[in-house]
Amino acid sequence: MKLLRVGTAGAERPALLDRDGVLRDLSAIVPDIDGALLSDASALDRIRAAAGAGVLPALDPAGLRTGPPVARIGKVVCIGLNYHDHAAETGQATPAEPVVFLKAADTVVGPDDTVLVPRGSRKTDWEVELAVVIGRTARYVESAEAALGHVAGYAVAHDVSEREFQIERGGTWDKGKNCETFNPLGPWLVTPDEVPDPQALGLRLWVNGELKQDGSTADQIFPVGEVVRYVSRFMTLYPGDVINTGTPAGVAMGQPEPKPFLRAGDVVELEVEGLGRQRQQLKDA
Amino acid sequence: MKLLRVGTAGAERPALLDRDGVLRDLSAIVPDIDGALLSDASALDRIRAAAGAGVLPALDPAGLRTGPPVARIGKVVCIGLNYHDHAAETGQATPAEPVVFLKAADTVVGPDDTVLVPRGSRKTDWEVELAVVIGRTARYVESAEAALGHVAGYAVAHDVSEREFQIERGGTWDKGKNCETFNPLGPWLVTPDEVPDPQALGLRLWVNGELKQDGSTADQIFPVGEVVRYVSRFMTLYPGDVINTGTPAGVAMGQPEPKPFLRAGDVVELEVEGLGRQRQQLKDA
Repeated sequence: MKLLRVGTAGAERPALLDRDGVLRDLSAIVPDIDGALLSDASALDRIRAAAGAGVLPALDPAGLRTGPPVARIGKVVCIGLNYHDHAAETGQATPAEPVVFLKAADTVVGPDDTVLVPRGSRKTDWEVELAVVIGRTARYVESAEAALGHVAGYAVAHDVSEREFQIERGGTWDKGKNCETFNPLGPWLVTPDEVPDPQALGLRLWVNGELKQDGSTADQIFPVGEVVRYVSRFMTLYPGDVINTGTPAGVAMGQPEPKPFLRAGDVVELEVEGLGRQRQQLKDA
Repeated sequence: MKLLRVGTAGAERPALLDRDGVLRDLSAIVPDIDGALLSDASALDRIRAAAGAGVLPALDPAGLRTGPPVARIGKVVCIGLNYHDHAAETGQATPAEPVVFLKAADTVVGPDDTVLVPRGSRKTDWEVELAVVIGRTARYVESAEAALGHVAGYAVAHDVSEREFQIERGGTWDKGKNCETFNPLGPWLVTPDEVPDPQALGLRLWVNGELKQDGSTADQIFPVGEVVRYVSRFMTLYPGDVINTGTPAGVAMGQPEPKPFLRAGDVVELEVEGLGRQRQQLKDA
């Protein structure tokens, strides 16, 4: 299933994109798409049954904003340097174990919402990522295989990053990862039955129409199941938590001078195979 | 005012500790103590008026657990190395600007709740801190003085830290800061009118009755107002967000070998002058 949330920011309603590409209203069936729903197998079955029975009312998508596909996200855990080609372009060694950092859930916006270039920013950069949404509490999970059973679905994430704040201002990366609007998510939460192999997904990102990133999750150093298993040994993952699993090569930071960092007016488009497409215009904060 | 939340985890009710030390039930006046309440001046005035009028019912504190004083915390922002003596004991230079990292809100527990030593941990460490709770959205705040106007109150925080996970496992500090139960908070949220000078508060921490940390917020490199101003340039602070403003010297990591890291059975007690006292027993996760 492709689950989404549509409407004005803070007042989205739950919806489903059906197999014919028709947008269907779920608000009579479930209150919202959040951690509580994703951990409730019977509620998900109810949605599936209603979709199969063809009883869900259609929604007119014209002029309808798409919000993030999950409400009340608890935390966004990010994996750094998780693609061989991206680690190489940043001049870093391949990590021996996953690099982990956090984004606050308040950075999450809809897939086509405006992204703000922070005041004083000179190095706002892009990162297309495969996001994993947790559906079942993951705590000291024993194996990568078992870890996949804690995944409620997959989505496109844009892990927007300010490289000067991240790297040159002292301390940890979080300073350049938590600016407002820095985590567009969606359009859809795609359930695992429609993602038979999360390690075979193409990821692409364009800036002003020019292809900048063109990778595959096959190049991930630590695959999704291993990431979930590993993170669950350091922090408990709850339903509705999100993991951004890293970005492939092609970010602005990895390019020759003058590096083409983002500015107000730029348009970024990105997609992950089977998970939909995002489009953001940049504006000044 | 001293605001707090009492009851079983997840089902706390709002309360007030009055000037005579009597616990008063607020649940007929406000639904809970959270960001929405803290940004609502008229609701806070209602509490103040009811307390002054002596109409709040008393609660029997016997056997009543104290929860974290704020519900639905959005994020916990932490300042690293913010005391001259602590920076020195870790062998780090005094930071030129604040070191910032994040804890997920799901690490927050009540002031006397059990703290879990993570599986595989050999270096679980303590850190008594002054926590600042945000009451009004802070975004590109112009001055340290103006920043203090965004503070809803102060509390004791225990920024529990696993040093091997934090420093020796690759990547950023977050890996050693987000283990479950790693952020006891409270007992009280003390409003600024009762904290005339946040830079003149003693902080103390004991392990098994032995005094380990004995500092003062006068030793902070970046004082509270400057911390809020600085952080607001990198991320937007929302009502109900918490900032842990750093720890003074005396952590296990700073002591001679064999360093006395925490183990199951240990008891940690900590206090910040005027903000109350915490007591946690350590258990294995």
